[in-house]
Amino acid sequence: MASRTSQQPVVMTIAGSDPSGGAGIQADLKTFTALGCYGTSVLTALTAQNTTGVIDVHAPPHNFMYNQLVSVLEDIDIDAIKTGMLFDAGITRTVVRTLASHFHEKQMPPLVCDPVCVSTSGHKLLQPEAIEVIVSELFPLTALVTPNKTEASLLLTHCGLPSKVDDLTDMITAAKNLQSLGPKAVLIKGGHITVTLAEVEQLSIAQPEVRVVRQGLLGENMEILQSVERDLTTGPVVVDVLHHQGGTVLFVRPHVDSTSTHGTGCTLSAALACALAVDEDVVKATQTATMFTHLGIENAIPIGHGFGPLNHLHGITQRSVPKPTPSNPHPLTRALIESTGDIWKAYVQHEFVQQLARGTLSRACFLHFIKQDYLYLKYYARAYGLLVAKSSSFSQIDDATRTITNVINEVSTHRFFCAQWGISEAELSATPESPATTAYGAYILDVGLQGDSSRLVMAVAACLLGYGEVGLWIKRQAALPDTWVKLEGNPYLRWIEDYSGEQYQGAVKLGLETIEAIAVADPPSKRRFEEWQAVWERCTRLEKGFWDMSMGLL
Amino acid sequence: MASRTSQQPVVMTIAGSDPSGGAGIQADLKTFTALGCYGTSVLTALTAQNTTGVIDVHAPPHNFMYNQLVSVLEDIDIDAIKTGMLFDAGITRTVVRTLASHFHEKQMPPLVCDPVCVSTSGHKLLQPEAIEVIVSELFPLTALVTPNKTEASLLLTHCGLPSKVDDLTDMITAAKNLQSLGPKAVLIKGGHITVTLAEVEQLSIAQPEVRVVRQGLLGENMEILQSVERDLTTGPVVVDVLHHQGGTVLFVRPHVDSTSTHGTGCTLSAALACALAVDEDVVKATQTATMFTHLGIENAIPIGHGFGPLNHLHGITQRSVPKPTPSNPHPLTRALIESTGDIWKAYVQHEFVQQLARGTLSRACFLHFIKQDYLYLKYYARAYGLLVAKSSSFSQIDDATRTITNVINEVSTHRFFCAQWGISEAELSATPESPATTAYGAYILDVGLQGDSSRLVMAVAACLLGYGEVGLWIKRQAALPDTWVKLEGNPYLRWIEDYSGEQYQGAVKLGLETIEAIAVADPPSKRRFEEWQAVWERCTRLEKGFWDMSMGLL
Repeated sequence: MASRTSQQPVVMTIAGSDPSGGAGIQADLKTFTALGCYGTSVLTALTAQNTTGVIDVHAPPHNFMYNQLVSVLEDIDIDAIKTGMLFDAGITRTVVRTLASHFHEKQMPPLVCDPVCVSTSGHKLLQPEAIEVIVSELFPLTALVTPNKTEASLLLTHCGLPSKVDDLTDMITAAKNLQSLGPKAVLIKGGHITVTLAEVEQLSIAQPEVRVVRQGLLGENMEILQSVERDLTTGPVVVDVLHHQGGTVLFVRPHVDSTSTHGTGCTLSAALACALAVDEDVVKATQTATMFTHLGIENAIPIGHGFGPLNHLHGITQRSVPKPTPSNPHPLTRALIESTGDIWKAYVQHEFVQQLARGTLSRACFLHFIKQDYLYLKYYARAYGLLVAKSSSFSQIDDATRTITNVINEVSTHRFFCAQWGISEAELSATPESPATTAYGAYILDVGLQGDSSRLVMAVAACLLGYGEVGLWIKRQAALPDTWVKLEGNPYLRWIEDYSGEQYQGAVKLGLETIEAIAVADPPSKRRFEEWQAVWERCTRLEKGFWDMSMGLL
Repeated sequence: MASRTSQQPVVMTIAGSDPSGGAGIQADLKTFTALGCYGTSVLTALTAQNTTGVIDVHAPPHNFMYNQLVSVLEDIDIDAIKTGMLFDAGITRTVVRTLASHFHEKQMPPLVCDPVCVSTSGHKLLQPEAIEVIVSELFPLTALVTPNKTEASLLLTHCGLPSKVDDLTDMITAAKNLQSLGPKAVLIKGGHITVTLAEVEQLSIAQPEVRVVRQGLLGENMEILQSVERDLTTGPVVVDVLHHQGGTVLFVRPHVDSTSTHGTGCTLSAALACALAVDEDVVKATQTATMFTHLGIENAIPIGHGFGPLNHLHGITQRSVPKPTPSNPHPLTRALIESTGDIWKAYVQHEFVQQLARGTLSRACFLHFIKQDYLYLKYYARAYGLLVAKSSSFSQIDDATRTITNVINEVSTHRFFCAQWGISEAELSATPESPATTAYGAYILDVGLQGDSSRLVMAVAACLLGYGEVGLWIKRQAALPDTWVKLEGNPYLRWIEDYSGEQYQGAVKLGLETIEAIAVADPPSKRRFEEWQAVWERCTRLEKGFWDMSMGLL
């Protein structure tokens, strides 16, 4: 959800507290968080309650309520507001007047009024005198009011309007009548009214101007799903009725037989505020918010002994790799290296590397290595060719192609050493491949065949980054006082300089950026990160195996 | 995060309220939600505050606090508890005694005590008489107490112990002294104490029994990152000192220069409670919780005019496809069909299909179609061959292989019709491929080359599911009174029966299960879902194009 004003829309709830966490500002804050909004919350009255009922209510002094409200309003820009339990006339009046005076000169953000009157368990949460204040003072500021059957009846009775809200036709009439009292739009929640799809269809025929939005019900051309799913079209459905300046809209979805309904109204109005904070279209907002709430009920987990809470967490997943930050601009690379610390170290500080840096590595070992590495680099260039084939943009194609060119340049080092020690290019090409070479080379091509481009990038990374690491490590060690590294007269100096040099390190930098960009553009699920990690680890082992082989240990 | 007891660990906070949303139970509930826990919250005292300071404090009667606490405890099983602002001695005593009496006979869940004394802005949030109750009554119940420098000093002074907490050595002494007062473990937070990595290293040498956990700092063998990142090892670091039965551990991480620190302590202790709710290892919990808090600061978004809140949402992403639920067991398939409603309909209710169901389709059109479909199915079988090659388990290999066998059976329908109308198999095989056939066939193989197995599954789905849909739709239409479908004497009856028949529909069902299982095992990011959706839409268009071609419209 993107904000009109910032990365995180700021939403304010003005409501009661439910310590058991399913309703009140607790439900609101959970909803705001799950929908990517920043939540602020002003407490009107506190309850001591749980899933079985309300035990006690405590309302702080009106002046304290006022102080909370101004402390938020004066410091923080609000993108949307919801009101829940307002408890009494004094609190309601304080809320209305403070908002009206604060937004006297600037645009009032969309306000959703959930006219909480009675708890699910039957506890009265609004004193009768407050109703008049809601209607006469709060409604005119309200973008959307969201009564249920009982609340709609109470409000209508108070205003001397027909108060029967028992069926679909009643709901439409009630919505229209309530809207005439001042709010921009009215959403009558139908959770407690039994309706069938047939009734919706009849009404559609009788009142063709009424728009019907089907939610979570199979649509047209879904015979294949219909044939394997339980038929939800014959049972009861839940219909919420929206009336706004653009007309009347019915939101129709399957009735879920559940006792996990504690805080449904709070959650819905909180989700509505989140949706309105980013887009003022009340139909779209209702669609998003009713589905969020419906899924909260469907995904509920048993908690408590009465009417349990919704599951507010159904729509979020945990990141497996953090976003890059100033102090950790390469979180994926770090996570990969950290996850294989010992193997990575055994690779980049291999005995082969240490002897090479000392200049004591036997020429036979080095030549064995250089010949096999020459053969390996053919696989490696081909892997980047495969990456070109798997690319979806010219810039990806360009990056991978430049790496192929770099590999071809890298091979000139191999030719240089061979020529220096009397090995012809023909002999180099004719060298039989060692199993370690085939294993590693064929593995990265296999990863490239099996997975998408991200997995292939992980497969080529251990080689690209590891040789860069070796080059820099040797250089860093060489710069220490009393270093064990011997650069002067080292027969392998060119190798060290090539991998620590600007050109190769430039390729390493490009590789780092590529790896990190993948996780930013498409945050990996846990499973996907584990796949990447497994490929990285395998390649790190294969790299170590390559040097084991070169030293004749294998 | 998996629970010891349920899908969502239940965590309780007993703390104050911050209407501006950055601290108190608001920070706690956001943290619980972001870490996948179910949050309950008992309010001790309310504040009117914002990012610039505390304006007012209101404490409800102790008896009301008691009522809140028992309403939660008596209804809901709690996996971990944190206490924040306890405000005065009476509240503190009520909390301690209620918890002690409730958990008299059953195991007390881990309790994290954040001994909040003074707000970041300097407001006193704990009355002096309460300190004695915290130390003498709450500490013995506490798994972990988390004072900052000021709070540690206050507590130590109160107990007549050395109270200087200015450097690393002081912190270790303070942690040990505080732990001797009763809590199982003590974490002294070092956010306000300036330390360098050199001091940590010196201390490590002097006190080798002290364990050091580096967090968010480059480790060994990360020269490649060191060469491109800002060096954080020379600047100040933050050190939190944990002392527990297993010894002393220092948690060392980069100091982040930020004014977004409002609610840091609340967030940390809330995250600690979440971690302890699933695993009692206090070192692991501290590692998780300190990093969660650190990333909250690093990812902060400017809110308010003073010390802004952390970003509690840094570790979560939004689902792009809901989890399967009883009323929507095939959410991914539904989302795909709904996202391409018109094109899908133009495909499955194509004029070709309608004429075929009426039996009025010209034989020439049908034969043109059947020949091209025969050629297409070769690509299609090969695509499943590629899927075999991309599989990672024998069961995936088995499923894809069975589909190849099904395709080979399907082709016998094609041969049947051709034979019936005098077209030899040789003529069938020699038919030149129409561009619509090549486009579709080559496209799915290209998707298979480019992406991973999930994308290939989406590419083959439009054909598999669409023909199943056509078969069922014709059958359903045929069953209506006064149907327009003519089955009797329809020259294409075998085609209809094949695609609506048990064998093909079995394959459709397997396909549905495969598609849904992919999204469950590896919830797609927004980007990834868009990729799947694009492939699905493209194939749906290509299917429609195939029938356009068959009818000679193209």
